[in-house]
Amino acid sequence: MVETRGRATARTVLAPGATIGILGGGQLGRMLALAAAPLGLKCHIYCPDPDSPAFDVAAARTVAAYDDAAALERFAGSLDVVTYEFENVELAAVERLAQSVPVRPDARALAVAQDRLAEKTFLRDAGIAVAPFAAVDSIADLEKAIAEIGRPAVLKTRRLGYDGKGQAAIGEDTELPAALAGVGAASSIVETFVDFAREVSVIAVGAADGAMACYDVTENVHRRHILHTATVPAAIRQETAAEARRIAERIMARLGYVGVLGVEFFVVDKDGGETLLVNEIAPRVHNSGHWTQDACAVSQFENHVRAVAGWPLGPTERHVDAVMTNLIGSEADHWAGLVADPAARLHLYGKRETRPGRKMGHVNRLGKRR
Amino acid sequence: MVETRGRATARTVLAPGATIGILGGGQLGRMLALAAAPLGLKCHIYCPDPDSPAFDVAAARTVAAYDDAAALERFAGSLDVVTYEFENVELAAVERLAQSVPVRPDARALAVAQDRLAEKTFLRDAGIAVAPFAAVDSIADLEKAIAEIGRPAVLKTRRLGYDGKGQAAIGEDTELPAALAGVGAASSIVETFVDFAREVSVIAVGAADGAMACYDVTENVHRRHILHTATVPAAIRQETAAEARRIAERIMARLGYVGVLGVEFFVVDKDGGETLLVNEIAPRVHNSGHWTQDACAVSQFENHVRAVAGWPLGPTERHVDAVMTNLIGSEADHWAGLVADPAARLHLYGKRETRPGRKMGHVNRLGKRR
Repeated sequence: MVETRGRATARTVLAPGATIGILGGGQLGRMLALAAAPLGLKCHIYCPDPDSPAFDVAAARTVAAYDDAAALERFAGSLDVVTYEFENVELAAVERLAQSVPVRPDARALAVAQDRLAEKTFLRDAGIAVAPFAAVDSIADLEKAIAEIGRPAVLKTRRLGYDGKGQAAIGEDTELPAALAGVGAASSIVETFVDFAREVSVIAVGAADGAMACYDVTENVHRRHILHTATVPAAIRQETAAEARRIAERIMARLGYVGVLGVEFFVVDKDGGETLLVNEIAPRVHNSGHWTQDACAVSQFENHVRAVAGWPLGPTERHVDAVMTNLIGSEADHWAGLVADPAARLHLYGKRETRPGRKMGHVNRLGKRR
Repeated sequence: MVETRGRATARTVLAPGATIGILGGGQLGRMLALAAAPLGLKCHIYCPDPDSPAFDVAAARTVAAYDDAAALERFAGSLDVVTYEFENVELAAVERLAQSVPVRPDARALAVAQDRLAEKTFLRDAGIAVAPFAAVDSIADLEKAIAEIGRPAVLKTRRLGYDGKGQAAIGEDTELPAALAGVGAASSIVETFVDFAREVSVIAVGAADGAMACYDVTENVHRRHILHTATVPAAIRQETAAEARRIAERIMARLGYVGVLGVEFFVVDKDGGETLLVNEIAPRVHNSGHWTQDACAVSQFENHVRAVAGWPLGPTERHVDAVMTNLIGSEADHWAGLVADPAARLHLYGKRETRPGRKMGHVNRLGKRR
């Protein structure tokens, strides 16, 4: 490191041989570690699950709970910078680490992203269009909100929701107490149901020196609330794509953001044009950006590592059309056909156990070269 | 594995989750392990050096000598297939492993490649052009050989030579006893000095089912006997390139070869045409093939892993022009400039100690897309 340890400043620059700590040992941590190695950077993975897929490709491993203060302290002592592969890390743990080692993206980005109310409020305050929403802490809040924003609507827990978990639809006939019970009566927000034409995302990256870049806008299709395919280019107007990238950069600028940021949008067809609403942001590498591994010289994983290391960003240009398809549960059993297809690039996560709904891998199918 | 353990046949096919053992923990083993992970295959690295760069990206490590019978037995017991990243593995160790686990490429390929006399004899017997050579075990042998093949010539130890080590030039005035002493008076071969116009190589790959493929012919420039640059396309005639690929495939077919094979050639300008002589073969991934990491969908490393796993080969097409430059010793200190260059792709090996002449990394500079 150029900076001395303990000065956890935005200017920290790692040298080859330095160690990046990653909170979380899933497939995103694994692919970050695979991208860090060619840059001469080591990874130390921290995860409570002893079977974490990222452990198989990392220089160092800690198996411990996220609230294990002693383990976190030892972890911090072995690192030059720390990042995370999922946004539901305990904020307290990250803030503790931040006292001795730079955390990128920083705790503020994490705080905004892990609470839907904070996230939507942040976006609205930044002048970025989101669906009308209201905070819900009681049945009275929910009744009042629905009276204002109308039906249909969607109730979502403020915290710990992913892949459709912690959500309840509110249709014309839905009983509100049942909906609130359906999300565990947790602290929630309710949002207008958006009748979108398509879902798109932007994978953006911010460098420690303030430079920013975006990959091409990706069009996403979900099945059973889990991402099914991510396709580039997205079938949207050029000016809509440009606006999506501008919004992603506005979010990063406002957060002083360092690392890869995933921004999910709804595209609404309106008055013969396209309108964008931000659905959510993810302060990490993102499933809809996995196509960058095979369609770009520098993937989202390498650019996240570069940003976290304080290095210059790599080019985000795409040189081939691509469709990423997630392999969920037993879909990964069809690996033999995929490795025999010259247009397919297989990425398996090395998970020991196949379970329904579990992301086991993905395949990038490459199309026309540009 | 589809086959049961113990039947170390050519038909063994690994399934994701299986483990590939790699003898040798240097940069080639490291890049093999990085290529195996996205295919869902684990690597177990065996190397006597506790600081081996490949350990940082592997699921399992054994630190032991190559002649440690007990360690080799434990290693074999943890594997579905074994390969190696350098050709100077003890043949006895490989033959012992082969009793319980498939070895790819097999012991015969290794035996041919690790002894220059066996290699040149094999090539000549296969009808492949090589420089005139003779075996040298004594000063009398050397005097007789030089009387036959003339000067200038090159004396090379039969075993353990690499990067110009174990070689002595024999010019018009060279005293033959001094030359023999210069290679340690070891069992040697002497070859006619070849006045070549350029050096090229072919990175070829053979699958367990007999399929074969070659990457584009690469032009190589050495400095102080160490590879400096590898450039594609090579500045040779199309028919010369086609002939080089045919020779590589003839070698693989004759050896029943499974895995990546590097074949180094001299190109001699003669009578207005180009003639090829094979200089040497390497039964492993090869330094002159590192450009495939960034210029092809499937690199030499992934194709070696596919072959060793009994999987179908991936495409070897190149989609961009490329120049690979090795970073030797302190040249890797210039990493900051390289990561800032959007046309350069940096690959560092994570070696703890920089030493003069040591390969610390390489950079692939990408040119015109095809």
